[in-house]
Amino acid sequence: MSDGPTVRDVSDWWSTAVSRIEPDVIELRGRPIQELIGQTSFVGVIWLLLRGQPPTPGQERLLEAALVSGADHGPHAPSIAVARIAATCGVGLNNAVATGVNLLGDVHGGAGEQCMEMLAEVTSRARAGSALGHAATSVVEDWRARSKYLPGFGHRFHSVDPRREPLMNLVEAAVAEGVVDGAYLRAAKAVEHVLTEGRRKPVPINVDGCTAVVYGELGFAPPLARGLFVLSRSVGILAHAWEETGQGRRNKGPMPPTILPTYLGPV
Amino acid sequence: MSDGPTVRDVSDWWSTAVSRIEPDVIELRGRPIQELIGQTSFVGVIWLLLRGQPPTPGQERLLEAALVSGADHGPHAPSIAVARIAATCGVGLNNAVATGVNLLGDVHGGAGEQCMEMLAEVTSRARAGSALGHAATSVVEDWRARSKYLPGFGHRFHSVDPRREPLMNLVEAAVAEGVVDGAYLRAAKAVEHVLTEGRRKPVPINVDGCTAVVYGELGFAPPLARGLFVLSRSVGILAHAWEETGQGRRNKGPMPPTILPTYLGPV
Amino acid sequence: MSDGPTVRDVSDWWSTAVSRIEPDVIELRGRPIQELIGQTSFVGVIWLLLRGQPPTPGQERLLEAALVSGADHGPHAPSIAVARIAATCGVGLNNAVATGVNLLGDVHGGAGEQCMEMLAEVTSRARAGSALGHAATSVVEDWRARSKYLPGFGHRFHSVDPRREPLMNLVEAAVAEGVVDGAYLRAAKAVEHVLTEGRRKPVPINVDGCTAVVYGELGFAPPLARGLFVLSRSVGILAHAWEETGQGRRNKGPMPPTILPTYLGPV
Amino acid sequence: MSDGPTVRDVSDWWSTAVSRIEPDVIELRGRPIQELIGQTSFVGVIWLLLRGQPPTPGQERLLEAALVSGADHGPHAPSIAVARIAATCGVGLNNAVATGVNLLGDVHGGAGEQCMEMLAEVTSRARAGSALGHAATSVVEDWRARSKYLPGFGHRFHSVDPRREPLMNLVEAAVAEGVVDGAYLRAAKAVEHVLTEGRRKPVPINVDGCTAVVYGELGFAPPLARGLFVLSRSVGILAHAWEETGQGRRNKGPMPPTILPTYLGPV
Repeated sequence: MSDGPTVRDVSDWWSTAVSRIEPDVIELRGRPIQELIGQTSFVGVIWLLLRGQPPTPGQERLLEAALVSGADHGPHAPSIAVARIAATCGVGLNNAVATGVNLLGDVHGGAGEQCMEMLAEVTSRARAGSALGHAATSVVEDWRARSKYLPGFGHRFHSVDPRREPLMNLVEAAVAEGVVDGAYLRAAKAVEHVLTEGRRKPVPINVDGCTAVVYGELGFAPPLARGLFVLSRSVGILAHAWEETGQGRRNKGPMPPTILPTYLGPV
Repeated sequence: MSDGPTVRDVSDWWSTAVSRIEPDVIELRGRPIQELIGQTSFVGVIWLLLRGQPPTPGQERLLEAALVSGADHGPHAPSIAVARIAATCGVGLNNAVATGVNLLGDVHGGAGEQCMEMLAEVTSRARAGSALGHAATSVVEDWRARSKYLPGFGHRFHSVDPRREPLMNLVEAAVAEGVVDGAYLRAAKAVEHVLTEGRRKPVPINVDGCTAVVYGELGFAPPLARGLFVLSRSVGILAHAWEETGQGRRNKGPMPPTILPTYLGPV
Repeated sequence: MSDGPTVRDVSDWWSTAVSRIEPDVIELRGRPIQELIGQTSFVGVIWLLLRGQPPTPGQERLLEAALVSGADHGPHAPSIAVARIAATCGVGLNNAVATGVNLLGDVHGGAGEQCMEMLAEVTSRARAGSALGHAATSVVEDWRARSKYLPGFGHRFHSVDPRREPLMNLVEAAVAEGVVDGAYLRAAKAVEHVLTEGRRKPVPINVDGCTAVVYGELGFAPPLARGLFVLSRSVGILAHAWEETGQGRRNKGPMPPTILPTYLGPV
Repeated sequence: MSDGPTVRDVSDWWSTAVSRIEPDVIELRGRPIQELIGQTSFVGVIWLLLRGQPPTPGQERLLEAALVSGADHGPHAPSIAVARIAATCGVGLNNAVATGVNLLGDVHGGAGEQCMEMLAEVTSRARAGSALGHAATSVVEDWRARSKYLPGFGHRFHSVDPRREPLMNLVEAAVAEGVVDGAYLRAAKAVEHVLTEGRRKPVPINVDGCTAVVYGELGFAPPLARGLFVLSRSVGILAHAWEETGQGRRNKGPMPPTILPTYLGPV
């Protein structure tokens, strides 16, 4: 008589509700793959796999817009730069993309997640009875006490992020159509108001903030703001790595070899 | 008078035609981001960034179907397994996705690329005057002389890959509508015929082969078969890493701790 | 007259005190590489690059022992498992090692860093006047209020970590020889005492805790506990990835293909 | 009666001769970890894990020198640059090191491996009866027919790699002492002679070539030239990532934000 481990323990160790894969069977969230191919959009499958059910058309439209907005920000973005460098080092295109994605950490890819948490806090304080403006002011103050960076607002490069207007307009329209309820949108505007009123240099919401609004309105958990940005930015990472591959450099450094780093050490 | 490096050398070192990013300007392939958000689908932006021009609706439909087809293959797939393991180790969700993508190498994610090259060779020999069946036979022979694995055909798990029929039907329809010309489709069918005729156990085309047909018909370069699979599989990688996060394990090994690896070394 | 950026800005952007690399010159922390090769041990160079000066023989001996202790913990360790899986996917050996290292995050590789912070806090409260035992008790209580895992103590696999005794003995000896002062060692023993006294099941210090003691005694910053563990574990990761390469599997999943994950989703 | 999978299948799936890890047991290649800690050098453990037996002192000395030689090559090296960039993106130090290691691919970290193969071929032709000079000439010709880069010879930065002389001297001494037999050394010198004789600009052996000689003399398989370089370079990668962490930049791009990439696309 044995109390030892069983094969069932191994099956359970790898249990999942995402997909069922058996010989001749592929089902995503209970739906046979052959009914998805050609019927469901790629964005619809992203939603389905992450949420368990397909999106409504209005939800899908918003998610689509958010994914489009983050796709690329050129070679200044660390994620893009390192993927281009990787592409010159004799690794696969998948390794180059992975190198870029690996950098979408708390500082580079995490602002959307943090902004969702901040906006959720504004919403929660407003629901608990604060006026929305007071809730926004107090949340901003609390955040600033912990960090000099307010996630999702301001941009080191753009005075107004060009992605702000189209994304905010789409959310407005979705609220008007009853697709989403607008709580994150109102919280974001309240924060933007706090950051802009009476200032010489306003701090408008940026793409991380706008997509945080979209993902919050759509009911995604905050960590998925980062997860969805990963899917979005992977496109630009791939496009840049592929372009770099075609340029034929080998072992590309961050600058031409004739420029030497400033040496600060002992001589 | 100086012959030293200039700032322009640095600008040129990072030159790109993918996007133009300047203060308050984001353009992808010459198109302002604010005109893309809400107007262009995510798959349309994938095409735009990789190809320089937007797709036609028929092209977009095919690309969409191919991206849907590879999104997940469950925890047996190395890319999925390692992302789930990573999610239990205290790294960001981006790091978990990168870990999975990093594994889509020559063996795991490269079959589509290799299959495109093989089908291109069939097409090329047919254009040079061989009957298509002879071209397929000779290419298969040449390939088998080099490797025991024929990329894009057969599956260790499925007798017939359930993604085969819907993908092949979509390509058939696209040929009928004049969206694509059908050369890769014909080459793939010729190879499948070679591998099936008179055999006890046929070797039908699998998802790597079907997507190779799609990408070939759409005019993508072979390495982008891998690149596009990366975008597709990233979705399942993310969904599984996220599910694992919710299960709360720490430092998940590949099996329950009560099962010990067989030790083969000195004692 | 230009206020634009200069080449010097680029040089400064990449400034470093770690090494000076110019045509025909390689200096690490001010020392020509040709004087290091054959003269300095590998561990000596690790110390030199991280600290700016070479170690004393006693310091080097302790660092050497800590690096030896973490080199491998078999296929149950996530870092080892994923590197072995990676090695079957058609990526380079460097990619397989990177995949393993990528998983040494807060939960898998971060315990040493957290333990150093905890022991530093014990030391600091003791220096501020608490008896060491009280300091340890209060720090453990504070830590437990935040987390159910006490970093560096206990092991899910070993009742007493076999690396405990040799490492603690080496630190004892180094204290006796005046190589280090023993503050971290005393703090660790005080915590171990708190966790063990009067308990049915003691919670002895583990390898993360012992190496935290070593690195703390040697004056490394806490994040380098993780950094040094990365160097140490890379050895086992490489050895396992290389062994797996020789076994010839392709696309190794976490279990044999005949074992199916338990499906928990809709049917 | 069952033909299904067993727990033993799972144990065998993860079989290894590298280490035996059981409750309260850690053995590396059959040696208890408590006998290695404090007794064996870190380089000794590297050898032990990769080769199965400990090195002789002479072997260890050579391996130590090779590992020292590749530890750093400054921010121009892609592996170093991307790790520094990663360190500013809010990821763990382990993720930053993994990012650097991931780039040591065929072009960046693979030259040693390729050089070992080339030198092995010279040795093999010489053993088959060719004069060594003829063997070297013919191997160089064959290689040049396939690639414009001869692995292990010449350097884009150094006219003579400063690591050449100390490494070659150590191998000479090891041959004199009977530690190694010198076949790779003779082959490398013969190739260097072919590349230098009668040329305006000689092409001396570089660090990849010298370490390929060391690893070849020591009997390592060619892929381990890359594997060992990974261990070596990880040290510099870590030191640079750590230095960058201390400089406090966020989302460091490859150049100051005031320098814009040259845009080559449509306007």
